[in-house]
Amino acid sequence: MTLPTPLTGVVPPVCTPLTPDREVDVPSLLRLVDHLMAGGVHGLFVLGSTSEAAYLTDGQRERVVRAVVGHVGGQLPVLAGAIDMTTPRVLDHVGRVTAAGADAVVATAPFYTRTHPAEIARHYRMLAAASPVPVLAYDIPPAVHTKLAPELVLELAADGVLAGLKDSSGDLGGFRRVVTAARTHPGLTGFTALTGSELVVDAALALGADGAVPGLANVDPHGYVHLYRLCRAGDRERARAEQERLCALFGLVGVGDPARMGGSSSALGAFKAALHLRGVITCPATAEPQIPLSADEVERVGKFLAAGGLL
Amino acid sequence: MTLPTPLTGVVPPVCTPLTPDREVDVPSLLRLVDHLMAGGVHGLFVLGSTSEAAYLTDGQRERVVRAVVGHVGGQLPVLAGAIDMTTPRVLDHVGRVTAAGADAVVATAPFYTRTHPAEIARHYRMLAAASPVPVLAYDIPPAVHTKLAPELVLELAADGVLAGLKDSSGDLGGFRRVVTAARTHPGLTGFTALTGSELVVDAALALGADGAVPGLANVDPHGYVHLYRLCRAGDRERARAEQERLCALFGLVGVGDPARMGGSSSALGAFKAALHLRGVITCPATAEPQIPLSADEVERVGKFLAAGGLL
Amino acid sequence: MTLPTPLTGVVPPVCTPLTPDREVDVPSLLRLVDHLMAGGVHGLFVLGSTSEAAYLTDGQRERVVRAVVGHVGGQLPVLAGAIDMTTPRVLDHVGRVTAAGADAVVATAPFYTRTHPAEIARHYRMLAAASPVPVLAYDIPPAVHTKLAPELVLELAADGVLAGLKDSSGDLGGFRRVVTAARTHPGLTGFTALTGSELVVDAALALGADGAVPGLANVDPHGYVHLYRLCRAGDRERARAEQERLCALFGLVGVGDPARMGGSSSALGAFKAALHLRGVITCPATAEPQIPLSADEVERVGKFLAAGGLL
Amino acid sequence: MTLPTPLTGVVPPVCTPLTPDREVDVPSLLRLVDHLMAGGVHGLFVLGSTSEAAYLTDGQRERVVRAVVGHVGGQLPVLAGAIDMTTPRVLDHVGRVTAAGADAVVATAPFYTRTHPAEIARHYRMLAAASPVPVLAYDIPPAVHTKLAPELVLELAADGVLAGLKDSSGDLGGFRRVVTAARTHPGLTGFTALTGSELVVDAALALGADGAVPGLANVDPHGYVHLYRLCRAGDRERARAEQERLCALFGLVGVGDPARMGGSSSALGAFKAALHLRGVITCPATAEPQIPLSADEVERVGKFLAAGGLL
Repeated sequence: MTLPTPLTGVVPPVCTPLTPDREVDVPSLLRLVDHLMAGGVHGLFVLGSTSEAAYLTDGQRERVVRAVVGHVGGQLPVLAGAIDMTTPRVLDHVGRVTAAGADAVVATAPFYTRTHPAEIARHYRMLAAASPVPVLAYDIPPAVHTKLAPELVLELAADGVLAGLKDSSGDLGGFRRVVTAARTHPGLTGFTALTGSELVVDAALALGADGAVPGLANVDPHGYVHLYRLCRAGDRERARAEQERLCALFGLVGVGDPARMGGSSSALGAFKAALHLRGVITCPATAEPQIPLSADEVERVGKFLAAGGLL
Repeated sequence: MTLPTPLTGVVPPVCTPLTPDREVDVPSLLRLVDHLMAGGVHGLFVLGSTSEAAYLTDGQRERVVRAVVGHVGGQLPVLAGAIDMTTPRVLDHVGRVTAAGADAVVATAPFYTRTHPAEIARHYRMLAAASPVPVLAYDIPPAVHTKLAPELVLELAADGVLAGLKDSSGDLGGFRRVVTAARTHPGLTGFTALTGSELVVDAALALGADGAVPGLANVDPHGYVHLYRLCRAGDRERARAEQERLCALFGLVGVGDPARMGGSSSALGAFKAALHLRGVITCPATAEPQIPLSADEVERVGKFLAAGGLL
Repeated sequence: MTLPTPLTGVVPPVCTPLTPDREVDVPSLLRLVDHLMAGGVHGLFVLGSTSEAAYLTDGQRERVVRAVVGHVGGQLPVLAGAIDMTTPRVLDHVGRVTAAGADAVVATAPFYTRTHPAEIARHYRMLAAASPVPVLAYDIPPAVHTKLAPELVLELAADGVLAGLKDSSGDLGGFRRVVTAARTHPGLTGFTALTGSELVVDAALALGADGAVPGLANVDPHGYVHLYRLCRAGDRERARAEQERLCALFGLVGVGDPARMGGSSSALGAFKAALHLRGVITCPATAEPQIPLSADEVERVGKFLAAGGLL
Repeated sequence: MTLPTPLTGVVPPVCTPLTPDREVDVPSLLRLVDHLMAGGVHGLFVLGSTSEAAYLTDGQRERVVRAVVGHVGGQLPVLAGAIDMTTPRVLDHVGRVTAAGADAVVATAPFYTRTHPAEIARHYRMLAAASPVPVLAYDIPPAVHTKLAPELVLELAADGVLAGLKDSSGDLGGFRRVVTAARTHPGLTGFTALTGSELVVDAALALGADGAVPGLANVDPHGYVHLYRLCRAGDRERARAEQERLCALFGLVGVGDPARMGGSSSALGAFKAALHLRGVITCPATAEPQIPLSADEVERVGKFLAAGGLL
């Protein structure tokens, strides 16, 4: 399907359920998609950071896109991450995910290499020239170690290179710069500005964002859709209360012992444990080399779910 | 061929010559290998950072390994980088480069994700368990944004997981910790410690390193081999003079205007411009999205070559 | 005067006007204070980062506090920064600024040294034990290279160590954690949560912040006070419009050529140039070793003022 | 006394012994100075990072310089750190430490502020213009979060601004650039290049450094002086053995539990515990807010001393 201009609403970065031997668990993935659609989400973002894209082989990535696109059948737009180090490698992913049916691709700046803004611009220009579908920029400095400057995003948007931005930088002031320009400059009509900061979705929508890509929406899609609707209806007080409930729930990402595992193991492990406890997916395994949560840590995930009214 | 235990000497990270349309230029690559072998190098490291591995597609990477392994015909060990974000993706590269004939693989810690030492250990243990050839760790914090702790390297070495270390961290004190332990602990016999710091190869060899992986050896293999021999012969004064000549030559990596391009564009562009000026490769193009050197900048590369006695 | 619990409203970090030979220009400083009070601000924060505290000698710092406290005469609370590397040195500043009449002190985590959360906690506990006035934590990772964890701030608040937080971290999600807890936990009644992020003051207030410490309020105090009142009145649309006007005005911090100067020179130089152009201060000089703005750059500051309706 | 040009040899950064209530313990300080001089050191560096300068009040700093200068009586050059955030504050320290008799001052680039190379150059030019004694640059990126570029150091050296460099950057390649230029450019005769990297003093001397500023020399001055003499005599094998003994001894900096304290608490606590165990100082206390070593951790320091032949 054609990507709406702009794409609005809640667009979860879809977790990738795995089997105990770390293959893509397609039946669980499709149940997860059903769970998200039942929650009322407005689009799906597969192969993002929350999807463990960095851990999935090319074959696994392709399987995910094919399965989700086939299942969704055009009811919702499906965006796919094309996460890799540099332009030639990202272009290979763009080819594969669009062949598999993705409606848009989402790409970061180059990483691993020492990158200059001029090179980032060239990167996105080449991606857009070769991609059969719209390209969104993915700003995620903790992963990429580069911050996309708002000026650069706006220049590329004005030139028709970028169709949108998924902002996981945590820099709401910089994001606002893009959002305000996109709302007020005629040349930027249709540009999509999505926040990845699940703790301030209400604030991002209030300042003009089109939507959100909250990892936590895997666990509680209804909550984020409810929040989105309250914001759009201008019911700020109930929106704030719902956002605060979700902020409390988000505490589950910290259950993993930092002496034993990194932040990805903890957060992605907790999302999957929650989906498992809620009966959505069959196995809570995360990809290698992540460290599994202990039984105690999973129990703490359960307490967060209970406190959030989800169990 | 079987990797020597330890591997000693000069093991250049081989540049990957490209055609003007950014395909692997195999004839130039083989001329470059001949140039390195004529210089007396002791091994070849393909698909490292200097090889632009981060910019090469899987197909291009495989072509490089096959071409070089076939050409070398077992006269020298060929190490291949398996540079990717996480264990499952690195394992795919390990499978491909070893099928193509690599004698050892070189892998970094996970990147893009937020990684914990326990996850790095798990990563290398899984790589070693699956690899048909020895695994060397590649410590390159500017790319990976994690420093491999000497203690972790030594633990993995003692367990037979790591066969060696390529240290591009710039932290000679930490590297020394590994080198000294490898030289003195019986359980670490045969462990290979190579420095990637081309400006202090004499110092690294003096403190016990087995060899060096200097990017600049693409341009001047004879120089680094000469330096290696002087060091091994204990001729410290002439070694220092040769190292200082190479340090001056290394200035060519800074010819690119930092207002116009990043450090990779400048350094890799300069290496390739030098190889082009010396008649080794046909085209000095670097991979996308790197910015090409200007004619003036290339001229400055030529001056460095002339000052270094290489033109 | 006693610090309100909580302190609410707009509390500008007061610029420190200097003479051409870099002495504190007290008459200009007092005119600036009058300008801020005429704008309706609710408190004054002297010796913060925007005040160039890092550049002021101990004698100059003391002069600033005495002059402002004497001039204000208890009409508004005066908070003073106690910016230095570690506890013993900060304690000296606390002694001096409270002797000079400050109503509260604002202190960062230790910097220059390699600091652990346990040491940060100890630091604040010792400051609070010795200070005759309330202590607020100042979270400013770009300066201090440490982020104050919300959990630590809340623990110190619950123990009566911290009376408040000035958050210049840019991490609105983390700030929200503190704000929500302060609003809902009985033990934290009276805790003051102020945002230093001038581009999202509306968002910070909407999620429960008590007030803001916007550097740009030196230039346009009426604007920020107007914004504060619109937010408190629940007039979100006009608040957003006013915030967007201020965001556009904030563009003046970028007038300085990054090839010629750092971000502090540009931003602080622009604030002072604006105050000079508006006739508030006599001389726009910034402290050494900052680079002065060029005439062209000052002209651009004037254009921002004109566009913002301030000239 | 006049600073030698260049200053050569071992110049320890002198620890600052404290009483249990954290006042400067002058008798212990003077015993420490005697211990260092008995070890044969060639100069003393007070108020450096190892001296806990960041933790000392202005009064304490002055007391240290006066005591040491008076005690040494011109037998050795005494360098003093002037560690503070920016030019005006550093100038105050320069005035105080030179009034107290320091023979040279050592200053970092500005910190806390966002600093540009042009501002760093201006900083050092102003310091040199005002200082009655030579100024050395102190390159310590982990504290200052800026790396001094070799080109900038050399430019300031050529202009007579900098008399020397104390390099604690860990970047031996960059340090070599300065050392080689200082040795070969006529305009740089007399420039002093000292390494602060205690683990590679042999390597730094081999490539041309004038001397070393090893924190560990507080604990074992004889060892570093012995190492220096072996290096100067060209006895590389015994030099390497002595350096390796000192590297093993250096392991004591890691005795502090990282879950309980930061790196400064551990390293400085271990140096002082060692000096206490060796009977040189009366009390091993470190300055606030550092965390004291536990009895077990002190016991481990003792084992390092025993293994190093120092107990």
